Parts: sequence; C-alpha cells; structure tokens
Amino acid sequence: MEAEGVSSATPTEEMNGAGNLMDFLDEPFPDVGTYEDFHTIDWLREKSRDTDRHRKITSKSKESMWELIKSLLDAWSGWVVMLLIGLLSGTLAGVIDLAVDWMTDLKEGVCLSAFWYSHEQCCWTSNETTFDDRDKCPQWQKWAELMTGHAEGAGAYVLNYFLYVLWALLFSFLAVSLVRVFAPYACGSGIPEIKTILSGFIIRGYLGKWTLLIKTVTLVLAVSSGLSLGKEGPLVHVACCCGNLFCSLFSKYSKNEGKRREVLSAAAAAGVSVAFGAPIGGVLFSLEEVSYYFPLKTLWRSFFAALVAAFTLRSINPFGNSRLVLFYVEYHTPWYMAELVPFILLGVFGGLWGTLFIRANIAWCRRRKTTQLGKYPVLEVIAVTGITAVLAFPNPYTRRSTSELISELFNDCGALESSQLCDYINNPNMSRPVDDIPDRPAGPGVYNALWQLALALVFKIVITIFTFGMKIPSGLFIPSMAVGAIAGRIVGIAVEQMAYHHHDWIIFKNWCRPGADCVTPGLYAMVGAAACLGGVTRMTVSLVVIMFELTGGLEYIVPLMAAAVTSKWVADAFGKEGIYESHIQLNGYPYLDVRDEFTHRTLATDVMRPRRNDPPLAVLTQDSTTVEDVETLIKDTDYNGFPVVVSRESERLIGFVQRRDLTLAIKNARQKQDGVVSSSVVYFTEDAPQLPASNPQPLKLRRILNLSPFTVTDHTPMETVVDIFRKLGLRQCLVTRSGRLLGIITKKDVLRHMAQMMNQDPESIMFN
Amino acid sequence: MEAEGVSSATPTEEMNGAGNLMDFLDEPFPDVGTYEDFHTIDWLREKSRDTDRHRKITSKSKESMWELIKSLLDAWSGWVVMLLIGLLSGTLAGVIDLAVDWMTDLKEGVCLSAFWYSHEQCCWTSNETTFDDRDKCPQWQKWAELMTGHAEGAGAYVLNYFLYVLWALLFSFLAVSLVRVFAPYACGSGIPEIKTILSGFIIRGYLGKWTLLIKTVTLVLAVSSGLSLGKEGPLVHVACCCGNLFCSLFSKYSKNEGKRREVLSAAAAAGVSVAFGAPIGGVLFSLEEVSYYFPLKTLWRSFFAALVAAFTLRSINPFGNSRLVLFYVEYHTPWYMAELVPFILLGVFGGLWGTLFIRANIAWCRRRKTTQLGKYPVLEVIAVTGITAVLAFPNPYTRRSTSELISELFNDCGALESSQLCDYINNPNMSRPVDDIPDRPAGPGVYNALWQLALALVFKIVITIFTFGMKIPSGLFIPSMAVGAIAGRIVGIAVEQMAYHHHDWIIFKNWCRPGADCVTPGLYAMVGAAACLGGVTRMTVSLVVIMFELTGGLEYIVPLMAAAVTSKWVADAFGKEGIYESHIQLNGYPYLDVRDEFTHRTLATDVMRPRRNDPPLAVLTQDSTTVEDVETLIKDTDYNGFPVVVSRESERLIGFVQRRDLTLAIKNARQKQDGVVSSSVVYFTEDAPQLPASNPQPLKLRRILNLSPFTVTDHTPMETVVDIFRKLGLRQCLVTRSGRLLGIITKKDVLRHMAQMMNQDPESIMFN
Repeated sequence: MEAEGVSSATPTEEMNGAGNLMDFLDEPFPDVGTYEDFHTIDWLREKSRDTDRHRKITSKSKESMWELIKSLLDAWSGWVVMLLIGLLSGTLAGVIDLAVDWMTDLKEGVCLSAFWYSHEQCCWTSNETTFDDRDKCPQWQKWAELMTGHAEGAGAYVLNYFLYVLWALLFSFLAVSLVRVFAPYACGSGIPEIKTILSGFIIRGYLGKWTLLIKTVTLVLAVSSGLSLGKEGPLVHVACCCGNLFCSLFSKYSKNEGKRREVLSAAAAAGVSVAFGAPIGGVLFSLEEVSYYFPLKTLWRSFFAALVAAFTLRSINPFGNSRLVLFYVEYHTPWYMAELVPFILLGVFGGLWGTLFIRANIAWCRRRKTTQLGKYPVLEVIAVTGITAVLAFPNPYTRRSTSELISELFNDCGALESSQLCDYINNPNMSRPVDDIPDRPAGPGVYNALWQLALALVFKIVITIFTFGMKIPSGLFIPSMAVGAIAGRIVGIAVEQMAYHHHDWIIFKNWCRPGADCVTPGLYAMVGAAACLGGVTRMTVSLVVIMFELTGGLEYIVPLMAAAVTSKWVADAFGKEGIYESHIQLNGYPYLDVRDEFTHRTLATDVMRPRRNDPPLAVLTQDSTTVEDVETLIKDTDYNGFPVVVSRESERLIGFVQRRDLTLAIKNARQKQDGVVSSSVVYFTEDAPQLPASNPQPLKLRRILNLSPFTVTDHTPMETVVDIFRKLGLRQCLVTRSGRLLGIITKKDVLRHMAQMMNQDPESIMFN
Repeated sequence: MEAEGVSSATPTEEMNGAGNLMDFLDEPFPDVGTYEDFHTIDWLREKSRDTDRHRKITSKSKESMWELIKSLLDAWSGWVVMLLIGLLSGTLAGVIDLAVDWMTDLKEGVCLSAFWYSHEQCCWTSNETTFDDRDKCPQWQKWAELMTGHAEGAGAYVLNYFLYVLWALLFSFLAVSLVRVFAPYACGSGIPEIKTILSGFIIRGYLGKWTLLIKTVTLVLAVSSGLSLGKEGPLVHVACCCGNLFCSLFSKYSKNEGKRREVLSAAAAAGVSVAFGAPIGGVLFSLEEVSYYFPLKTLWRSFFAALVAAFTLRSINPFGNSRLVLFYVEYHTPWYMAELVPFILLGVFGGLWGTLFIRANIAWCRRRKTTQLGKYPVLEVIAVTGITAVLAFPNPYTRRSTSELISELFNDCGALESSQLCDYINNPNMSRPVDDIPDRPAGPGVYNALWQLALALVFKIVITIFTFGMKIPSGLFIPSMAVGAIAGRIVGIAVEQMAYHHHDWIIFKNWCRPGADCVTPGLYAMVGAAACLGGVTRMTVSLVVIMFELTGGLEYIVPLMAAAVTSKWVADAFGKEGIYESHIQLNGYPYLDVRDEFTHRTLATDVMRPRRNDPPLAVLTQDSTTVEDVETLIKDTDYNGFPVVVSRESERLIGFVQRRDLTLAIKNARQKQDGVVSSSVVYFTEDAPQLPASNPQPLKLRRILNLSPFTVTDHTPMETVVDIFRKLGLRQCLVTRSGRLLGIITKKDVLRHMAQMMNQDPESIMFN
C-alpha cells in the first residue's frame, strides 16, 4: 500500500525503473506517510508500513549480532510497553485513590497526629479506638471542633457545613482552572474521544504528557470536591495517555498509527482493570466498548497489561484491605427464582434511567455548545459544585464519597455492621430464634435511611445530568452505579420486609429460615447498579464480568444478567446509542460504529461523489499534468487525495495519490531538484520519456502513488461498502464501472449517508 | 452481492429492465445461492442475503399484525436458539458425566444395592460408612469378591485385572464399531474440523443428528474404557451439533451459512462451558481459538448460551457437590516470588511437551494416513486399549479415571485427606508445633506416590501420542492436563521438601511458618496442567481464564500466567502451530488462520492465475457467448465461477457468475423456457436486443450475475490481499490493471502461496 514498499517490490520492476532518470525520491523525504490533525488514518497503509519495517529488521538481523539483538529487542518491545503501562497506570490509580481519600475527608476535618492521614487511616493508627466505634477517635477532629472546641451544637454544624462547601468550591475551582489553562483536553470522561481515536482518527495532544499530568491532578480535585462524578472513565483516559507516552520510546509504535492503537487498546483495558480491580472485565470492556481493531495478539497483551496494573495497584493497597476490587462483597443467602421479578423490574428502571440520562444530558450539552452557557465554564463548574455541596451536606448518604455510599449499599448486614441501614429490631422475646445475622423487622433507623436514600436518589439523578460534560474530568460509572444501587437497596429492603411480614404467603414460603437472611438487600443494590450502568453505557458481557469479578462467585450471575439484558432491551427500544456514541455524534467525530447494521438498499452509485449535477471528479492524468496544474488543483480543492487515471478520455484508474504527499513532494522538488518549474510535466508512469533539453525537467512521482487503491463497482450495495470500510479501515474507496473511474466514496460520505438513512427510517433500528 | 438483491435495487434499473423480455428468472429457481459439499462460502454474499431477508420482514411487518408478530419472533429466534443450545448441551454433558462415572467404576466392581450407582454414589447412600473410609462400603463389591467371595489375594487381583482389561476392550470395541458403522465423522476431537467449518467451509453431515447421537454414546464408551483421552474437545463438537440441530428450526439460520456460523460459535462456547464449568473461559475459548467471524452480538449470545449450559449442568449436579467446575480447589497458602522459578520451569516443560506431542502425534497420524495402518482402525483401537488397560491397572494413579487423578493432584492436603500423597510424618515430638495442616517431612507414602507418579507420567506421555487421532471420540485437554499435573505435583513436592529441610536457607526464609504449609504442591500441579495444555493448544487468555474460574481467585493468576506465557514462547520457538492447526494442515482443509501474519513482499500479480505460461483465463462475454459455449466451458473446466467481461478484446470486467448458479440456470431454462437451444446467445447485459424471430430465443442471465465482484490491482501487496480475504471472508478476488481483467485469486491460491512462502523462509516466523 505504501508507495515505498510497492515500487521496489519485484526485481523486474526495479530493473526497469533504475537508472532511467535522476530520481530524487529514492531517499524518502520527511513526513511522507504521516497524517494531519483531525484526519482519518488508513489502516491498511499503516499495516503495510509495519510489515515493511518488520521485513527490513528481519533481513538485517542476519547481518550481524548487534542487528539480531536489535531485532529481538524490537520483537519484545510490545511486552515491555505493556509492562510499563501496567506499572504506571497501576501506580497512578493508587496515588489517585490515596489522594482522593485524604482530600474527601479534608472537607470534614483533619487528622491531628498526621495531617496527611485520611479519617480511616487516622483512626486505624490510633490505639484508643475500640472496634465498635472505629469512626470516632480523638486524633480525628472536625473543623468546628478544632477551631471552636465544640464538637456538637448548631454553631458547629453551621461552621462544618460552611467549610465543607468552601473546600468543595476550592477544589472544583482549582480543577477547572487547571484544565482551562494547561490542558483543555483533560476534561470529560475521555472515552468518546478515545473510541474515536482508536477507530483511526488523529487528535494531536489528546493523549499527550500535559493531558496526563493535568488529568491526574484535576481528577483528584474533581472527585474530592464531592461532585456527582466518578474516576473510572478518566482513569481509562489516563491509562491511554500512559500508553501513548510509552509508545514514544519505540519507533515501532511511535511512527505507526496502527500499531500505536493496538497499544492504546491494551492501555484502556489496564485503565478499567485498575478502576474496578477487574482485569478480565477490563479486557472485555476494551474489546466490547472501546476498541475498534482488536487482533488476538492485542487480547493477550491487554490481559497482561491489565494484570500488571491490577497487581501494582494491589501492592500500593490504597483501600487498606489487600483486596483488589473496588467493592468487595460476600453474600450468605442464595437467591430465589421469584426474586427474578424485582431484578427484572430493576432492569427496566435501569433502562429508563439510561434513556432519561442520555436524552437529558445530550440536550443539556447541546445547549452548552450552542448558547451563552458554554462561554462560562468556570462559573458553571462553581455553580454546580455549590449546589451539589449545599444539597449534599445535610444528607449523610450524599455527604460522603459516592464510592463509599455504593460500598455500604452493596454490603450485606453482618453482625458487626454499625450502619443505620442495618438497624433491625433484635427482640429476644420474639417467636423466631435470635441469631447473629440481622434478619428481622426493620427498626426506625432503616425507615429513616429509606427516606434519606429516596432523597439522595432524586438528587443524584438530577445533578448527574448537569455534571457530566462540564469542563472537568468526570466519569459516569460511579454516579450511574450509585443511582442503581440506591434504587436497588430500596427495592431490596421492601422485598425483605414483605417476605418477613408475610412469610406465610405462598411465594415467600421457605425464604425466611432461622439463622439466615430472608433476602439479601445488598444483592439488589448490586443488580440495580449493573442495570443502571448497562442502561447508560449499553455494556453487556464486560458489565456482567466486571460485576462477577466484584463478587467472585458465579452464584449471582443470573440476577445480574437478567437485569443487564432487560436494561439493554428497554434502553435500546428508545434509542440504540449509548452515552458514548451519543457524545461522539454530538461532537461530530467521524466514528463508524461496528455495531450499527446498515440495512438499506442503496448502492455505491447513490453515495459516491460527484453527484449528478456536481462538477466532474478532480483527477490527475498519469503523464499530461504539469506542476502548475497540480498546484492549482491543490489550491482550489480541499480533497485529501486525487485519483490518477491513464487519460481524461479513457478514465481508466491507475492509482491514488494523497494530497499531503503531493504537496510535500512538489515543495521538496521545487527546492531541491534543478529544472523543476511550473511547466514541468508530472509523470506517474514507470518511465518518463526522454525529452529534448529545451523542455523543462519532468517530475517523476510514481514513488508517492498508491498503485493499489481500493475500488468497488457502482453496483455494490452500500451495506457491503460499509462493511469494507469498517473491516479494512479505509479512508476512501474509488467507484468504477467496467474499469472506468466514476467517483469516490470517503469515510465521511459513508457516515453522512448512514445518518441520512437512519433519520429517514427510524423504525428500522428496532429490529436488529 | 447476491444477484437477486442487486438487480432490483434501484427503481431506475427496474423500470429499464422490466417488460423488455420474458424473464423467467423473476422467480428464483431452487438452490440458487447454496453451496456444494467441501466448498467455501462467500461471507459477504451470506451477509447480503441476510440483510435482504431482514429488509423483507421489516417492510412486511407494517402490513398486518400477524406479520409484525412474525417479525418479532424472527428477532427473538436467536435468543431462543441460544436457550435451547444451552439446555440441551448442559443436559447432554450431565448425562455423559453420570454415565462415564458409572461405567468407569463398572470396570472394577458393581454396587449391590443398585447396579446403576457408581462407586461414590453407592457408598454415599450407605449408612454404615464413616467419614474415614468413604471408599469402602459393603454395598460396593469388586468383581473378584462378587464372583469368588475373596476380596484379597493374588487370585482376586488377577481376576480383577482380567475383568478390568476385558471391560475396557469391550467399551472401546463398541465405540469404534459404532463410529465406523453409523457416523464416521464422530471420531477425533472435532475441533480442527469445527474451526474449518466456522471459517466458512461446508462439510455436510459433520454436525448432523447422527453424529450428535453417536458421538455422545461413543464418547461415554471411549472415556469409560480408560483410554488416555478426555471429553472436552468432543463436548464442543456435541454442542455444535446441538447448535446445528436447532438452526434447522429457523429458516433465518438454516438457510444462511453465515448466520448459522454465528450460532455455532456460541455453541462452541457452551461446549467448553460445560466441559469445565467455566462460562467466561468458554466464551473466550470460542473467541480466541475456534471462531472466525465473531461479532459483538455473538459475544453476548455466546455468553448467554454458556451460562444456560453451565446452570443446566449444575442443576443435574453430576459431581454431587453442587459445584459448577470440574476441579474445584481452594488453597490456603500464598505463593512467594521465588516460586516463579519452578513455575517458569514448568512452563518450559509444558512448551517442550507441546512440541514433542504435536510433532510425534502428527508424524504418527501421517503414518496412519499413508500406510497400511489406516486400514485397520478397529484393530488399532483394540490394540491401544489393550496396552493401555494392561499397563494402567497395576498403577493406582493410572487405573482410575484421568479426571479423578487430576482432581487429586490439584488438591491441597487437608486434615481429612486420606490420599497417599498426603502421607506426611506427623510426629508430636518434633520441634515445630503440630497443627491440622500437614506440612511436615514426607512419609513413605509420599515417596511411594512419587515413584508411581513418575511411571504414570512416562506412560501418559507415550500413550497419549498414539491415542489422539484414532477413530473414536478423543479430546486431549484432559490427558495434556494430566501430564502437566503429574509433573507439577512432583516438582511441587520436591520444592516443598527442600523448603522444609532447608528452611534456614535464605531463599526459603519465612516460607515455613507454624500453622501453614510451606508451599502448596497442588498449585504446582495446576500450573503444570496449564503449561502443558498451553503448549499443546497455544491457548492464552482463555486458558488463564478457565484456570481462574477453577480456582475462583485472582491470587494465583500470576503463576498461571507466567507458566502459560513461557510455555507458549517455548513451544512457538519450535513451530508456530498448535495441535488443531497442525491437524487442519495434515487434513488439507482450506483454513486461513487469522493469526498467521503474512510478511512477504509478493504482489497479487505473483499469485494470480493464469500464470505466465498458462492458457488464458476462462471468461464469458456479456453478449456474445452461446449456451453451448457456456456448457462446454463448464464441462472442460472445474472452476467455481467465471468472470464476465465486455468483450474479449477490451477485457473490461462487468461481473462474476458462480458455476453452480450457471449450471442450474441453464438446466432450468432448457427445461422450462421455450426456444432456448444450444445456439441461443447468453446475455448478461441489462437489455437483450430485439432479435428477428428466426434467431433462437436469447437467454437472459443478469439475475445470477454478481455485479460487484471484488477486485484488486495487480500491484496490491499480497499481505493486503490476505488481509482482505481474511476480514471479508472472500471466496475469490479478481485482479485488474487499469480496469483490464488480468487474472483471479482464489482462497486456495492464497493458502498455497502462504504455505510456499512459509517453507521458503522458516526463520521469519520467529519474529512476530
């Protein structure tokens, strides 16, 4: 595909071509074969270039020992990059976790023995704490206590409240300012852009060093500020930045956009792996959700990177429990068939939430893009943070960090649990035997908690819609899961109390047995979280596998799967696109989704350009265009490349030349090659004719001509064309009929056509 | 792609074409678009046909309520098929497990209380058994005891020995006879053939009902006979037969070879899922090892099928422990960094075993194919069974079933373990405290076991080479794992004893602590099993995930991964192909491996036919070929299709017509259409000219013409061509230069060329 590899490919050709003419292009000039910013890469060409490089190394490796060692290093560089990505992203995730822990607690108070300790660490190191009130230790003081000496009372409450809001505002102001000043690309979750980049688009600087640094710092600030956002999506972005950073160490990856994307796919897996402590789920997430081109070799390497990252994180041990996973749970009660009904209802809720969230969030983001709102990002962040903090403080379930909330909601009520949610009535006079697992009528604490949870649910639902998409790093895994977990826990407690109070009903028969819980409300929270996350992102297998890795048992896969399937079906009924695809579309990235099936009966001829009344296609001829003609063509048009034909009359295609290569070649020739003037003829043929000395020196450009452009006939159904674009990763494709060039189809034409057809017939998407 | 879809695609064309000529082809005649046995399918065409079908249903669904229901049923049929596959393959796996258990024990004795009970079931139902000797209960009697009344003594031993061999011979004779008489395709593991079928090849009857029935029955017989083979590979075949069976219920799948293969991919996942109780591993196995075209939709459905299958199996509960997995283990001791050295050594052993096994087995199978040996399959099976049984009986580790052996080797020595392998000296006078976990110097039982295991290892290595490939169902997961587990356990015990006796050495420092084992020999067995399985099959991620699902903890993923990586690298250094690819090559199936990278500098022009001195390409012209010409061409050549050009002079390509469609169309026209005689002219153009009545009636065949044949230029590098064939699943591709047709490249040409280049330069495969 690449010019260099092709033209010297067969010995016969080399013999014919050599020595005829001074060919300055024997030495490739710089930048040929690179891409401009915001352009699409040609996967086939990248692959070809890598094979060339590989061939060169292999043939050189036989020459000397040193070359052999170099070739071995080259072969191993992929694994080295994976190892480095795993180590760095694991470390960063650990540091982020520790920093977030500390700064979240800083909003409420400070550790006197060592100010860099979080609340938990502070009280863990304290000797005076008994197991019963782990949360209270003299070293940890709330701000009011520290400043006024009074821990209780209205004054202290108001002071704490005020400082909580102040810290939150400070953190979020810092975050948005850093993003604005140093790295605008550090905002958002990053997954829509990474999906687009992986599908073969160039966004320079998106995965750069500055983005890495600023995103890491501002992520800590944004999460600590208590906004309704999570760190999972941004962690994927951070891991991809690490991947890009390490790519630059090896020319194999830094100089080849295709190979680079293999590394980035693996880095995305490492990112999810550290976000949840779920390496297999991370690999499947990368495969299912993020990646575009995912060969088996990448699967294996992603797995390696994900594992290294997970183990690095574990050795840092930010959660202090030597667990790998974010929310570790263990349940003791099996589930019953009849429970599938509430689980499926939670799935429906998840699907509805997904639809609501996507529609509302996209509408709000569109408003931000088109109205005055978008001009004041700092103010927007400050305002949302202020509202969040003011509303969050009074409710204990929203005051703390969202991860802690989810963790508590997932948890089974053990004997030692001091949470309000586990405040069951434990009356020794009751007819049923008392055991150490609380499975009894709910006490006032539980009812109180239910009210607070309901308020928290409404608050989270509303605020998340406005938060996702602001100019700070923000993931939506955690807020989505929180919404689902709250809803799930409420349903779970309701079912539990029903089963307890009506244990004589036929469906609840045998549910409540002495010594065991009737049902596990924590499981409902987990199912709800899966349903809501599925509704928003439309993940399927990776979602279930991540949840499976959290619980570590196959027992609960059926409830999770039932909820995930229901949620996906419900959400798909209202619109096929997940939040990431919606944001891609909102931003107009040229992303060709592998999952959209194109089922319309259009043909290549309906999509190709020029259209019926357009001017004819801009083409070059192989031996009758002058340098001036070419320059005019480049100036007058903005096409990315031009087909080269035998002559304007026959219109028989011989190749395709990239605009960028053509510009560079002519510029280069004008500077360095004597006798190339505006009237020089450009030759794309193998040999330029021997011209009389009076004529201007010809310019031979066969080297930059792609002799194997991709063609389809005008009768090819568009579904096949879409398939070809998708699977081969083409930039453009030429359309011919009986060997004559008729037109061209670019990736953008394909995308535009697909969008057009989709709008014409929105019903067709239901049946897929 | 498909003729029908194309020719009536645009309204303009329909208007032009209609009414000009009596076009009998408006009604498609039967069998157009189907494939012959042992032919390759055209994936693009199948996909096109499915889209057509789908479009038809969608447009019809608006007509009436009934059609809407039908369209909804059609949309759900995929899930229904998955559910059925899961249910049936889970049930079959359960039945096979139960039958194998019973028949394996039948070789040694019988249960008096109920002859259909296996040894374990027999003694479980017995009340008299204490926990200490679960294996001994009066209801279970060995044959000698039953027949002569003496349980002990030389006579009883000889009689038991004799009956053991006799039963084994009987089972294997039955198995091979059933295979020979009823379903020759039921032999072997089936995975190489399934890989080939999934890559788009037609082998009629390979997944038929008879194969399903006979393979299920003979699999039980073969495993019970004590031969060194496993049931995992054949279970995949059985599951795929189930998949094929259920495909026939829905025309969506039965009439489309592409869609059918999606179902079969999912069925393969269900097969592995029930074989190991590892649903996620099964899906990844299908993705990594078996499948060719694996869209995301299939991933999700495979997961569903795999889960349903696993839960069906669990509700049958053949292992009697309500565990899902085949070998459930729980370890209590962590592993130490220094242990990676023996783990990596086990990886090297696994790689060497893989290489040895593949080379020796392929050499033996080639011998079987080419010499007299292949003519006596029944005799071969009898002989191998005889040798296996005679050698296996004296050694307790080979006498029992291989799964039981692996299970014992994987197990940690708990306090209640009565196995010889756990015979450690438990001396209360020793300096170290006594605890309930045996971690002490090895007793005589352990040394005895080591000898027996070493003998079993040699025996298994040799006999497996001769067993795999015989004319009975035979998988090699279990034998490979057994080899690795034996080697691993031996290494594990060696390390353990070293660590115990030299606990003052610096590397063993802190390994042996009171109350815990020094090391876990069972973990070594597991690592060895993974290494050997990896060496033979070259599985990577799926292997680690299956092993992870067996242990259920991320703790031990690093040892497993280290061994799997080492084993793959060592084995790859000797040859890139796993056992399945080797068998595919041995049998000459047209399989284009996704993993082979083609890195040679050849061009399409070097591969296309006709070659330099060949006769010119057989082509049809669009309006000057007679029916007789076509018939002669069909008779004289055996090509699968012919390009259609404008005229022989211009050689400009307009389409491609399949041989099968052409034959059927002419036969049909000769029978049904008046006036079509040998001298009739065949028209591939849109309109046939109005001829005088004296001329014979023309035959219009545009309907069967593929107007969008795939073309590449002669300068296209072969690596790109290989990529296109692989990703788009082509049967053939036409080669053009500046619009003129030069030649054709078929899938077989590509495969032949790849094999040629591979042999020329075997070194290149090292650097991948």
